[in-house]
Amino acid sequence: MKKKITIGYIGLGRRGYGVLKGCISEMKDVHIKYLCDLHEKHLQRAADLLAEKGLPGATLSVDYQEILQDPEVDAVFIMTDWASHVPIAKDAMRAGKYTAIEVGCAFDLQECWDLVDIYEQTGTPLMMLENCCYGRREMLALNMVEQGLFGEIVHCDGAYSHYLPDVELFLDLDDPIRHYRIDEYKKRNCEQYPTHELGPIAKVLGINRGNRLVRLNSIASKSVGLKEYARDHLANYPEFNTDYNQADIVTTVITCEGGETITMKLDTTLPRAYYSRNFTVRGTKGMSCEEGKVVFLEGMTEPVQNNEEEFFAKYDHPLQKEYVEIGERGGHGGMDWLVCRAFIESVKNGTNTPIDVYDTVTWMSIAVLSEASVKQNGAPVEIPDFTRGKWQNREPVTEGKYCLDKVCIDDTAIITD
Amino acid sequence: MKKKITIGYIGLGRRGYGVLKGCISEMKDVHIKYLCDLHEKHLQRAADLLAEKGLPGATLSVDYQEILQDPEVDAVFIMTDWASHVPIAKDAMRAGKYTAIEVGCAFDLQECWDLVDIYEQTGTPLMMLENCCYGRREMLALNMVEQGLFGEIVHCDGAYSHYLPDVELFLDLDDPIRHYRIDEYKKRNCEQYPTHELGPIAKVLGINRGNRLVRLNSIASKSVGLKEYARDHLANYPEFNTDYNQADIVTTVITCEGGETITMKLDTTLPRAYYSRNFTVRGTKGMSCEEGKVVFLEGMTEPVQNNEEEFFAKYDHPLQKEYVEIGERGGHGGMDWLVCRAFIESVKNGTNTPIDVYDTVTWMSIAVLSEASVKQNGAPVEIPDFTRGKWQNREPVTEGKYCLDKVCIDDTAIITD
Repeated sequence: MKKKITIGYIGLGRRGYGVLKGCISEMKDVHIKYLCDLHEKHLQRAADLLAEKGLPGATLSVDYQEILQDPEVDAVFIMTDWASHVPIAKDAMRAGKYTAIEVGCAFDLQECWDLVDIYEQTGTPLMMLENCCYGRREMLALNMVEQGLFGEIVHCDGAYSHYLPDVELFLDLDDPIRHYRIDEYKKRNCEQYPTHELGPIAKVLGINRGNRLVRLNSIASKSVGLKEYARDHLANYPEFNTDYNQADIVTTVITCEGGETITMKLDTTLPRAYYSRNFTVRGTKGMSCEEGKVVFLEGMTEPVQNNEEEFFAKYDHPLQKEYVEIGERGGHGGMDWLVCRAFIESVKNGTNTPIDVYDTVTWMSIAVLSEASVKQNGAPVEIPDFTRGKWQNREPVTEGKYCLDKVCIDDTAIITD
Repeated sequence: MKKKITIGYIGLGRRGYGVLKGCISEMKDVHIKYLCDLHEKHLQRAADLLAEKGLPGATLSVDYQEILQDPEVDAVFIMTDWASHVPIAKDAMRAGKYTAIEVGCAFDLQECWDLVDIYEQTGTPLMMLENCCYGRREMLALNMVEQGLFGEIVHCDGAYSHYLPDVELFLDLDDPIRHYRIDEYKKRNCEQYPTHELGPIAKVLGINRGNRLVRLNSIASKSVGLKEYARDHLANYPEFNTDYNQADIVTTVITCEGGETITMKLDTTLPRAYYSRNFTVRGTKGMSCEEGKVVFLEGMTEPVQNNEEEFFAKYDHPLQKEYVEIGERGGHGGMDWLVCRAFIESVKNGTNTPIDVYDTVTWMSIAVLSEASVKQNGAPVEIPDFTRGKWQNREPVTEGKYCLDKVCIDDTAIITD
């Protein structure tokens, strides 16, 4: 086992910089040897951060290839725009570097298959940093499902309900290096951001480990929210009169091999009262639901709401218990910290990652498949079996496999290479 | 305008008796001339009720045809099991009696077309007593939509999330005259109870009045909840080892002519924390949502929850204001009272009903269409235009049309025929 790992960190925009600042640069067992971005101002901001924290200076790079050629580098973090995750990941995996990619979606199925093929040829692990798999609510449900408390699981709901015009889509309009999601919304019409919902649900349902996603149906509403927002707020920008292809609401229903259904909703362009992932698990003996902040077990008396805290006290996932003890670190209530640790621990231990290449491509592929279904008025579209049959015998997710080793959260030690 | 109407009341089971007791028998402008049911004990219970209330005795009948032949009868209430609503309604409409049917669903499209044809031939109004159209939350949203406060409406959600094994499906197993829903759950697999959700949403979206339902996709989960419940609780009954065809969760997405989408969920056989219709309206300027009990308008600061009461105070539907003033009557928070009044007022005024034959069959037909879609893995199924093109020019729902006349709620007067 390695005590300290050496990484290249690629992509220093808003998200990349945020995770670097809140998580990676705080971890004493990580040596950040390279910082890489196409934009000088991003590189400088990140270099300043390391200096402020008293960390060794990193090599600043505009070409990730030089990182991949360095035999000292154990792993790379790819925090770039969605479209470049896969091309860089393919090169990184071929170079034998443990590869982490930020959340995103696929643009075609070939890139998904490429990742699988490269993994199977090289054995290099790939992990999507799907932080929502490490949400406290999601892990509580997983823990309770694994203990059988909800009975047989039948249905799950999820959503990405997050109103984005002010906080991302039209933010920094005067900055040439701004967020690219709006460009994708001009082009595509699909479930463009599936993994925050689907990742944790896939864990609960044992997807690619005894179960698999079989098909989906996706249905899109009209697209009027962004155009109306631009008309109201962006009179002096070209966005004022731009057309968007992306529907305001895309509803997707996935059917699983075990007969379970999953509903998903992409919901980012109509004003709404609060952020929600609507994480919901329904079984024959009980349920967990983000709306209502409720856990319910057969035998309890209806109606019940807002009782989640009682269940955190009783059934918190072991990893979350440890996390609560060390106090909040990183953003998003600890999810960022924990997902980064899961990857880093895998690198240190030389094991596969708890979210692996099959999980990553299965989740990412939903965007492409939903795009096809939307075009056919929600006709069923088969979801490829990226495991090529291995899902039947892959080990189920168990607590030990999914959890981090307990020592992984200790970042106070002084660790030498 | 008639001051008092004469009715025949057909179907005196749990629901029929409940509405008779809480609503119809309390209304001074209604003369209940006939009580009709196939079962002696139901007839006797209803007759006892009228006697207890000091009302004139009604003729007790086991054959609804005798009611239809009585020229004194203005209207009939059909409160029987789902399967007999349409056959009785067809006869009643042909006999020229204003016809109210309880909530239910269609078994084939032909019966829907038959109702349309008979209406168009005879001019006899038909109304489904969809009480949820008169829910306070639903009417608040309708009022705000009509005032343009939510902007352009893009998407609605609804659900029938009500855990039924204890309260209905397996209730009174020893009684030979028990609820028939369980039999439908053995046979069919579809959105069997669409109208509680779809009725109010159709009002909001102007369905059959400038807009129409174009197609749907329905996807069904596995069916395990009832079987497991029976295994756990019903060892001494034949239900112990019965198979159910009905999925635990059926998700349906409807697409409208205007590009709006509607999601629906039938959810009655898995334990859950609370009853919900998940009534949700999403527009370009705001939203209303039962989960969260929230109304949100652009410009408010996220997050907001539990602020519905403020909006009731400010934008309560005029009809609800009157209802609140007279104090709660009937069941389900006034919805039963108001929907019965809407029908009775139409009879008194000789007008069409606010939920008319086109609305009724459009909403009922979802069961049949969803059944077809479920069998094809959620493939899109076209929804017939039961108005045969008239939806384009039918008047939009306006407050006056939808509302009751304000005097209709006064039931304190002594009214002679």
